[in-house]
Amino acid sequence: MLPVPTINPFTPPRRTLMGPGPSDVYPEVLAAQSKPTIGHLDPLFVGMMDELKSLIQYAFQTKNEMTLAVSAPGSAGMETCFVNLVEPGETVIVCRNGVFGERMRQNVERVGATAVVVDNDWGEPVCPQKVAQALADNPQAKFLAFVHAETSTGALSDAKTLCQLARQHDCLTIVDAVTSLGGVELRVDDWGIDAIYSGSQKCLSCVPGLSPVSFSPKAVEKLSQRATPVQSWFLDQSLVMGYWGSGSVGGKRSYHHTAPVNALYALHESLRLLANEGLEQAWQRHQQMHQTLKTGLEKMGLTFVVDEASRLPQLNAVYIPDGVDDGAVRTQLLENYNLEIGAGLGALAGKAWRIGLMGFGARRENVALCLRALEEVLAQ
Amino acid sequence: MLPVPTINPFTPPRRTLMGPGPSDVYPEVLAAQSKPTIGHLDPLFVGMMDELKSLIQYAFQTKNEMTLAVSAPGSAGMETCFVNLVEPGETVIVCRNGVFGERMRQNVERVGATAVVVDNDWGEPVCPQKVAQALADNPQAKFLAFVHAETSTGALSDAKTLCQLARQHDCLTIVDAVTSLGGVELRVDDWGIDAIYSGSQKCLSCVPGLSPVSFSPKAVEKLSQRATPVQSWFLDQSLVMGYWGSGSVGGKRSYHHTAPVNALYALHESLRLLANEGLEQAWQRHQQMHQTLKTGLEKMGLTFVVDEASRLPQLNAVYIPDGVDDGAVRTQLLENYNLEIGAGLGALAGKAWRIGLMGFGARRENVALCLRALEEVLAQ
Repeated sequence: MLPVPTINPFTPPRRTLMGPGPSDVYPEVLAAQSKPTIGHLDPLFVGMMDELKSLIQYAFQTKNEMTLAVSAPGSAGMETCFVNLVEPGETVIVCRNGVFGERMRQNVERVGATAVVVDNDWGEPVCPQKVAQALADNPQAKFLAFVHAETSTGALSDAKTLCQLARQHDCLTIVDAVTSLGGVELRVDDWGIDAIYSGSQKCLSCVPGLSPVSFSPKAVEKLSQRATPVQSWFLDQSLVMGYWGSGSVGGKRSYHHTAPVNALYALHESLRLLANEGLEQAWQRHQQMHQTLKTGLEKMGLTFVVDEASRLPQLNAVYIPDGVDDGAVRTQLLENYNLEIGAGLGALAGKAWRIGLMGFGARRENVALCLRALEEVLAQ
Repeated sequence: MLPVPTINPFTPPRRTLMGPGPSDVYPEVLAAQSKPTIGHLDPLFVGMMDELKSLIQYAFQTKNEMTLAVSAPGSAGMETCFVNLVEPGETVIVCRNGVFGERMRQNVERVGATAVVVDNDWGEPVCPQKVAQALADNPQAKFLAFVHAETSTGALSDAKTLCQLARQHDCLTIVDAVTSLGGVELRVDDWGIDAIYSGSQKCLSCVPGLSPVSFSPKAVEKLSQRATPVQSWFLDQSLVMGYWGSGSVGGKRSYHHTAPVNALYALHESLRLLANEGLEQAWQRHQQMHQTLKTGLEKMGLTFVVDEASRLPQLNAVYIPDGVDDGAVRTQLLENYNLEIGAGLGALAGKAWRIGLMGFGARRENVALCLRALEEVLAQ
């Protein structure tokens, strides 16, 4: 036998999470998550899943039947959309203005499809004119894929307009709403989004690990007409829906995989809290906290990566001032103030910080702590 | 705006979970899971991951560097092994003696490889002679895949012998240890297993949603020599290992996806409890509790699906007596005793019950409750 590792219980500190996610988790969500585990086919659990489905529908503002939480993080939600809808040989127009657009492109290639990339600079929103041109130039394209809220830069793209363009060219839309859901306006049905995925750990302030997704009837039709099997067994929505049910409350469920029972309790509670607050109220709160943070950051002389017109309230990317040691500042914030802010990612690594105001984290006390702590550390 | 759903907090009952999983979760694990969320790149979290890796290595009895927890359930762990190691056009010998061998076959097909199926009846272990024949008949085969402990029937296969056979034919082994890990003898390095996956919700008595996996150096070499990209971005271990690190404690980690932070706290705690008890002691405890349960079930006239020689202590499949209403019995156990036992799956649906004695659930009080409650319900 190998030697037994001697390891103590892990006792995490209490951090204030103001990075790009995970965000501060609602205490009620942590409490919900630690309730007793029951079976994934227990009738009471199935009832909870029905409620969860209606809560996800509300958050997405959709009546889509195929609405559920993928039992894995947002990256798996992204993959769920691509592997189920896109078949080998098809063409997808992918908008790339940060890390996650590039990840979409890689997903397209890994299903054996062709990605036509529409590039915008990091920090810019997706340009509708460029997308219109790409749609016109590629009549064979069947999908338009874009990131609503680019977590790597803090840019918000005009999902409504992009979806209109896609519809004019008979393209289905695949939309990344990982950071947007719950933080800014998002209306899946009104805007005509066909496939959307998000993450539990951003503006929902749930624990990380789950990905709410929703497919429109048109997307479901595309899925049902596939000529080839979905390459992923785990993410195959035609199988997963046998477990989540097709809408009939209390209907018969068949085992697909063992659901992450306690994590789903947590998501249920976080979405319940969002519904209690009201979506529009949550959007407003994010905007208000952003304004307060913005005023304070600008007073310190910090400048934003993204223009005001397309700036996300929940993800504030600011340039690191000249001569300031990126890592040292973040380490001091973490060690001395228990405050996490995010490093830059990809093209912005070492050049920007990303300050999150997400969900339960979008509170005045968080803004105050962040401004004061950053001021103190930068003054040293 | 869509109407706001009015939903109360979910309050699950306290069940005793004696089905095929999820099993009773250690109270310490539920408590660990609800500790404050910290960032997935926080140095303290990275330190926790290093400990977790050594705990998974101990549980698997392996020194494999590529040892980690997939951020999704056991089915995703299965898929991780197949999509990373098997390339299109390759041949895999798949042993099928229940639901999960069949799921392996489907995974092989979905990567565009060829499955040569070795069938055994449901309830039988995998037959080494048949496997030896298949290996001899298929010299082009590169892999042997089998389920160590078939959750659908309760049959234990001889992993050590099967791995020896595979080695004689230069085949790598892919082993499903979802139900075996922590419940019966399993020695990854001694037996020469090349790729193995398990689940958090069986004999580890952690919450469902994670899959410990481990790849041998030979498996890592196979992965590194791939001619084609791994079809799944989310499960691509060459990317995931950039986050989990290649063994250097405290080394630089790069973001791949947001780890399920709180679920990993839970797995850390459950594996810590297993290490504290000692693996061999845990195996013995499962065997002792099984003997007690077996004696009681046989007194009631119930008979086992699996022969004694290959019977899993942690998963007891017994035939439903003639004339007894399967669903009614399970519903009464659930509603009147808060006791969950498992239904039959696949070929055993409606014909057998599956009584789990897994991890924290393998206790004398659970056995006593199960025997007494079943006796009372069957006497009605």
